[in-house]
Amino acid sequence: MFFHRQELQHQATPDRPDAVFARKLQEVLGGQYGEITVAMQYGFQAWNVHLPGKYRDLLYGIGAEEFGHVEMLATMIAQLLEKAPLGVTEDAVQSDPTVAAIVGGTDVQHAIVAGAGARPVDSNGNPWTAGYVTASGNLMADFHSNANAEMQGRLQVARLYNMTDDAGVRDLLAFLLARDTMHQNQWLAAIEELKEDGLEQLPVPSNFPQAQEATEVSYQYLNFSDGAAAADGRWASGTSLDGNGEHSYHEGPTTSAPMPPPTHPDPRLYGTTPTPNVVEKMAGKAKDALNLD
Amino acid sequence: MFFHRQELQHQATPDRPDAVFARKLQEVLGGQYGEITVAMQYGFQAWNVHLPGKYRDLLYGIGAEEFGHVEMLATMIAQLLEKAPLGVTEDAVQSDPTVAAIVGGTDVQHAIVAGAGARPVDSNGNPWTAGYVTASGNLMADFHSNANAEMQGRLQVARLYNMTDDAGVRDLLAFLLARDTMHQNQWLAAIEELKEDGLEQLPVPSNFPQAQEATEVSYQYLNFSDGAAAADGRWASGTSLDGNGEHSYHEGPTTSAPMPPPTHPDPRLYGTTPTPNVVEKMAGKAKDALNLD
Amino acid sequence: MFFHRQELQHQATPDRPDAVFARKLQEVLGGQYGEITVAMQYGFQAWNVHLPGKYRDLLYGIGAEEFGHVEMLATMIAQLLEKAPLGVTEDAVQSDPTVAAIVGGTDVQHAIVAGAGARPVDSNGNPWTAGYVTASGNLMADFHSNANAEMQGRLQVARLYNMTDDAGVRDLLAFLLARDTMHQNQWLAAIEELKEDGLEQLPVPSNFPQAQEATEVSYQYLNFSDGAAAADGRWASGTSLDGNGEHSYHEGPTTSAPMPPPTHPDPRLYGTTPTPNVVEKMAGKAKDALNLD
Amino acid sequence: MFFHRQELQHQATPDRPDAVFARKLQEVLGGQYGEITVAMQYGFQAWNVHLPGKYRDLLYGIGAEEFGHVEMLATMIAQLLEKAPLGVTEDAVQSDPTVAAIVGGTDVQHAIVAGAGARPVDSNGNPWTAGYVTASGNLMADFHSNANAEMQGRLQVARLYNMTDDAGVRDLLAFLLARDTMHQNQWLAAIEELKEDGLEQLPVPSNFPQAQEATEVSYQYLNFSDGAAAADGRWASGTSLDGNGEHSYHEGPTTSAPMPPPTHPDPRLYGTTPTPNVVEKMAGKAKDALNLD
Amino acid sequence: MFFHRQELQHQATPDRPDAVFARKLQEVLGGQYGEITVAMQYGFQAWNVHLPGKYRDLLYGIGAEEFGHVEMLATMIAQLLEKAPLGVTEDAVQSDPTVAAIVGGTDVQHAIVAGAGARPVDSNGNPWTAGYVTASGNLMADFHSNANAEMQGRLQVARLYNMTDDAGVRDLLAFLLARDTMHQNQWLAAIEELKEDGLEQLPVPSNFPQAQEATEVSYQYLNFSDGAAAADGRWASGTSLDGNGEHSYHEGPTTSAPMPPPTHPDPRLYGTTPTPNVVEKMAGKAKDALNLD
Amino acid sequence: MFFHRQELQHQATPDRPDAVFARKLQEVLGGQYGEITVAMQYGFQAWNVHLPGKYRDLLYGIGAEEFGHVEMLATMIAQLLEKAPLGVTEDAVQSDPTVAAIVGGTDVQHAIVAGAGARPVDSNGNPWTAGYVTASGNLMADFHSNANAEMQGRLQVARLYNMTDDAGVRDLLAFLLARDTMHQNQWLAAIEELKEDGLEQLPVPSNFPQAQEATEVSYQYLNFSDGAAAADGRWASGTSLDGNGEHSYHEGPTTSAPMPPPTHPDPRLYGTTPTPNVVEKMAGKAKDALNLD
Repeated sequence: MFFHRQELQHQATPDRPDAVFARKLQEVLGGQYGEITVAMQYGFQAWNVHLPGKYRDLLYGIGAEEFGHVEMLATMIAQLLEKAPLGVTEDAVQSDPTVAAIVGGTDVQHAIVAGAGARPVDSNGNPWTAGYVTASGNLMADFHSNANAEMQGRLQVARLYNMTDDAGVRDLLAFLLARDTMHQNQWLAAIEELKEDGLEQLPVPSNFPQAQEATEVSYQYLNFSDGAAAADGRWASGTSLDGNGEHSYHEGPTTSAPMPPPTHPDPRLYGTTPTPNVVEKMAGKAKDALNLD
Repeated sequence: MFFHRQELQHQATPDRPDAVFARKLQEVLGGQYGEITVAMQYGFQAWNVHLPGKYRDLLYGIGAEEFGHVEMLATMIAQLLEKAPLGVTEDAVQSDPTVAAIVGGTDVQHAIVAGAGARPVDSNGNPWTAGYVTASGNLMADFHSNANAEMQGRLQVARLYNMTDDAGVRDLLAFLLARDTMHQNQWLAAIEELKEDGLEQLPVPSNFPQAQEATEVSYQYLNFSDGAAAADGRWASGTSLDGNGEHSYHEGPTTSAPMPPPTHPDPRLYGTTPTPNVVEKMAGKAKDALNLD
Repeated sequence: MFFHRQELQHQATPDRPDAVFARKLQEVLGGQYGEITVAMQYGFQAWNVHLPGKYRDLLYGIGAEEFGHVEMLATMIAQLLEKAPLGVTEDAVQSDPTVAAIVGGTDVQHAIVAGAGARPVDSNGNPWTAGYVTASGNLMADFHSNANAEMQGRLQVARLYNMTDDAGVRDLLAFLLARDTMHQNQWLAAIEELKEDGLEQLPVPSNFPQAQEATEVSYQYLNFSDGAAAADGRWASGTSLDGNGEHSYHEGPTTSAPMPPPTHPDPRLYGTTPTPNVVEKMAGKAKDALNLD
Repeated sequence: MFFHRQELQHQATPDRPDAVFARKLQEVLGGQYGEITVAMQYGFQAWNVHLPGKYRDLLYGIGAEEFGHVEMLATMIAQLLEKAPLGVTEDAVQSDPTVAAIVGGTDVQHAIVAGAGARPVDSNGNPWTAGYVTASGNLMADFHSNANAEMQGRLQVARLYNMTDDAGVRDLLAFLLARDTMHQNQWLAAIEELKEDGLEQLPVPSNFPQAQEATEVSYQYLNFSDGAAAADGRWASGTSLDGNGEHSYHEGPTTSAPMPPPTHPDPRLYGTTPTPNVVEKMAGKAKDALNLD
Repeated sequence: MFFHRQELQHQATPDRPDAVFARKLQEVLGGQYGEITVAMQYGFQAWNVHLPGKYRDLLYGIGAEEFGHVEMLATMIAQLLEKAPLGVTEDAVQSDPTVAAIVGGTDVQHAIVAGAGARPVDSNGNPWTAGYVTASGNLMADFHSNANAEMQGRLQVARLYNMTDDAGVRDLLAFLLARDTMHQNQWLAAIEELKEDGLEQLPVPSNFPQAQEATEVSYQYLNFSDGAAAADGRWASGTSLDGNGEHSYHEGPTTSAPMPPPTHPDPRLYGTTPTPNVVEKMAGKAKDALNLD
Repeated sequence: MFFHRQELQHQATPDRPDAVFARKLQEVLGGQYGEITVAMQYGFQAWNVHLPGKYRDLLYGIGAEEFGHVEMLATMIAQLLEKAPLGVTEDAVQSDPTVAAIVGGTDVQHAIVAGAGARPVDSNGNPWTAGYVTASGNLMADFHSNANAEMQGRLQVARLYNMTDDAGVRDLLAFLLARDTMHQNQWLAAIEELKEDGLEQLPVPSNFPQAQEATEVSYQYLNFSDGAAAADGRWASGTSLDGNGEHSYHEGPTTSAPMPPPTHPDPRLYGTTPTPNVVEKMAGKAKDALNLD
């Protein structure tokens, strides 16, 4: 169960309205790596977890914080939009090109659809989608996803920090940056702890018997491009990070197989399939073609 | 530039058709963590990279391999579909419930839309979307995203491995498992190398001056749920993984701020806003309400 | 801020696993009218509200309950999936067509993607999208949206109730049905109260001056089809529900205007536009054509 | 069957082109509550209706009108776009910042994709999706959805009315406002009529036996937040609008159940599951943790 | 304006219900190439057309027919669903595996969401999206899109024809097949007529001055794969279909340019960028790497 | 398999940065008819093809070229974004409205999400979706889709050519225009060759026996609108392009059928269905209604 308190974790009031920045701030509310994503992601990981104890408590404990971050950002955006001009085209152009300029940078749905309210969308107006969420049941994989989400999130907040000089907004962003610092550290620490607790190892999933994979290519770096500098990386020689193999470097594939022949499904699917004499004719022409150059 | 060779990196032919499994296999072709995702992700990371040398070569070198994996899976799926029954409902029911059962598990668009061909969709028929792709320009963040993608991918392939006993299919899956092992190791190694090369540190982005964040909450674990076991994790005490702070554990938030008052946007947006006497009336009632229980 | 308690509002444990029903139950978790929709919708309405007091408290008070309903359904679905068979095609077909039948009815992503966990998707596997959310800033409009959401939600739960005979599942559905009863009544009551408080009237938005609309067609029922029974409805005669007009019934439109001529945008957009002699030629042929029959 | 007449229901020609407003007007053509939505929604409700007579005739009669509204808006938008500048960046900046400002506010796909034509998208360029449509087969629920759609629609048109001073555009918007007035009244009247005809009552669906729901919570207002003013609403005391119960007000839930233990699905799904000694170790640490503060 | 008549263009009643086929039939109602697509596509092409006369009349004339086809299919689907079993899992399994088999093949949203009604989705339940629509303002391009849509549509109907033996369903499909035959011929004829009327030629857009393109590669077939048979096609030698050039065949590209160096955007975007000594170090290692093999 | 070479097929470097144009250029990278679409489309057609020889080689040969075009555009976009201003609202407004104007026209996700990198989205920021891809297994249909894609693509590039005067950008666009010329010719030539090779004819699919369609309406032009000029087209009289029939022109439908009665699904789906006396009452009122006017 969730309980709501009519307080915010940190002050979320801008010094002045700024509808253009409101649009940009939508990214970290409703974008791929916005607060809705992490709130929902930690929620689903918690509800699906197969372990009692600290990992489940961790997911529950942080997930609820993130729903509060959704609220802080929504509240901030509504206030940034408070004095947004309606944006009558003619007015703007005739009286003040600056106003027109600003209008050009706003999310017009903020006014038309939400009446100057926050929306569950990203900074381009794409609705948030659960296609962003990861919850696989394997905590090692999912905690890497969580660490990445907090990194992308902090990165976006840092960029936004430089796109405004409003002290009220920056104050909130500084708070979010700090919490993202915590959450990055936390998921990386949880990854270490999973290993120490003997719950998961590399490669993920570690409980799949590695002997069943094609071990001859498990540690080969195969270069399918023509830049050779990748040979210099830790991934191209030496012991692998999982401790199970030795890396080697190869130009291109070390294996190959002929392309299988075309398929011949049920003729009532009306695909284009050859009649015998067409095949013969095409084969003949193909032979000639091979002599072309 | 990309060049194509009419060979596969590994044999991709099933022992027998299996339209139900073909549908399932779509997940690792066109799903959130399918081969299209990693191929496109490594491509965009490479095209946007700000560094010459080994990291760019790495992204180019692996990206092209992944496009070949897309091809192996598409080829396999087309062959799995080769003898798919058309699925006339009456036939199935009257003659053989097993056939009906199978038909129920297939992706009907395989037949109706693609004529027994592979499709760029996941195992539920959702079209692949670029909303799955991550390419931020910050390699530390992106390599965590890549490591996660390879973990989720290997996890899904491992699950699929147990959903079939077709030796041909398993042979391909074993190959993909091995390559995912390599790629997991590789991205984790690349993360280590970024640190050693002095290019990035934790927290991401490390070139944002950490002094500008609200450092008092940067290493606090705040428990917004009521399970106390999370206090026992490495994230709740001791030095943080980034080496910049000491973790502490707290029940609930250590900070709070009052909820800002409701906004009052332009009346021509026709939101519901109070008239003075309504406010007064509501305030009076609210006072009474507070005595209710 | 949101706080989580590791309890559920109502027991959510099935008598036995049922992966087919788990898929169906996803509809009221992650579908158009599932619990995620109402939780997010009430949240955004609350964050954007322009009024202090009871309406804002109502939105906050109910919104948090709905997040708890998301959790109850996710928890239930995870348990329904607990013993889901892996679904090896051959096994199923050879040993037991019933198993194959069941497998055909499951959401295969439950196993492949979530490892037998709940997902933020509907019963066809479409990811939840914020395109379902309504939060306009006008409470009269939004409360109608809320009432509809609770009606569609209760309707879907009622249908699901008849698709299972599992007592544990039905017990949870009975609880959800009751809460939807409450919430339907509540939003309809809130609509009445908005009118009584003098905050909004019909038609929405009531603070737009109705004199500026084309009042001559404001209360006309225009029949664009050929069934005449609609003339018998309350919408075709008598005083309108908003009290501002008298309905009348008309076969087809009471107004019309000629179709404007084709547009002629910038030629550098390379649309197909006529040259003078083409126009002449086409005009001539058109004249002939008019005599055709 | 549908028949088209090359006339419009109302004049739809602007006084002058305005590509910025054209973009905004897309909202009521192809947005969540645009004309495509209501046209398709009334169509699907009509095709699925289980009743002969006035309700079906109503749906058919209005649905066809709405397809004509789609046409009026598309025609208007194409004319608003007629003289849209191509928007060469350099030209704009050097010669006239106002032009650049305008260009910033346009939908660039209007030019690049449609060659100055209307598109089936909203004002942020999101393609219209059938995820917006509601057609449940239960008319009471669906008519509430319809009433809401007409309210949201009229609200958006009213907002757009204030974003332009073009008399031709306002003339069309005034017509749409009037028709939305009619359609709001009509659906609310139809709801009343359904009750009077004895076809549906509250709560929806009224033909589900209410005795099967958990009646003890059917009329309780449960406050999951900490604002007490909601106790003052009609939904917190007195007889419910459906006439079947008495409302009561409660701080928080009146029921609760323990969280079920974590699930243990098939190990071949490779989720993270505890080994016995891990469980023991974690339990021990959790006990210590409880003494922490 | 559109007017509706309560008749169908062709009888649309199945001999018996078949919920599995109902799901399949959704493809040609709400899929990528379903009737909603062509109805909307011809509509938007008509509203955006820049020519008076026969082409506009053609688009209007056919567009309205297609809306009627939407209706025929929706009506048919609702009837196919009329006796759909509710699909209680236990019942199905215990009493009759065939029933379970059938249930596995249905669209569960048909029952849960639409109450046995048609939906604006494809056969996998993906909502129809306006992303399927093409309306560019260039008739030559758009008529090719239309021809393709009618071909894909007829192909899908032909496949569906073989998936049922219900005479009523086949009767409707036979009608749709015939109309698709007409519409294929019609768009191809319209393409010819555009050329004869001097309105458009190849290549599209023909009013862009071809001298401004890089004419040296305008007619070269460049083979980026290693199969040589393509050299045998009409596209590899002889005069081009547009009559403006001579085709030639080449293995791989005839042009190339070095990859531009990595970009260096504003450092406040916090991408990973090299410090001077890192560049030096990496350059050194890269040099070594080049000697590796 | 795909192999990458760190070279471009053509130079892709702008003369100067232009973040506004970078956004526009996204259309032909990640839009409905962008390079990702054709690369993936030709790939899936190749993997699903049922024929050996020249057609398969053609698809492979061109598909790999298109992946290289994706790369050229991504590289160009990254460079166009290189000096993009961060867009601090206050700075822009106070110091230079031109800068604000430019910022209004950019894709803000270019900075916030990608750190001045290209993204797999269109010019409005919609993520690329595989819903754009066509691969049916029938080559005649698919080659028409391909021809259309190349036409729409060349049309969009031509429009973009006029939206910039940057010589570097235009140089790349001129190259793309030329390749689109080739590819248009190629697919149209391949259509001719399919006929000559006896593989497919009109109407598609030609291997469905045309006698099974409702041949009486196979060549009728049915005018569902009221413009008569369409009677003048080649589609309204004379022999059809497929050579199998004679066109005729008709005002409206030549066939019709009564609308089937409403359906009556399982009552446990809780749709609105009539009780006997309601039917009677409604019938009576309907009779009266018919006398209304």
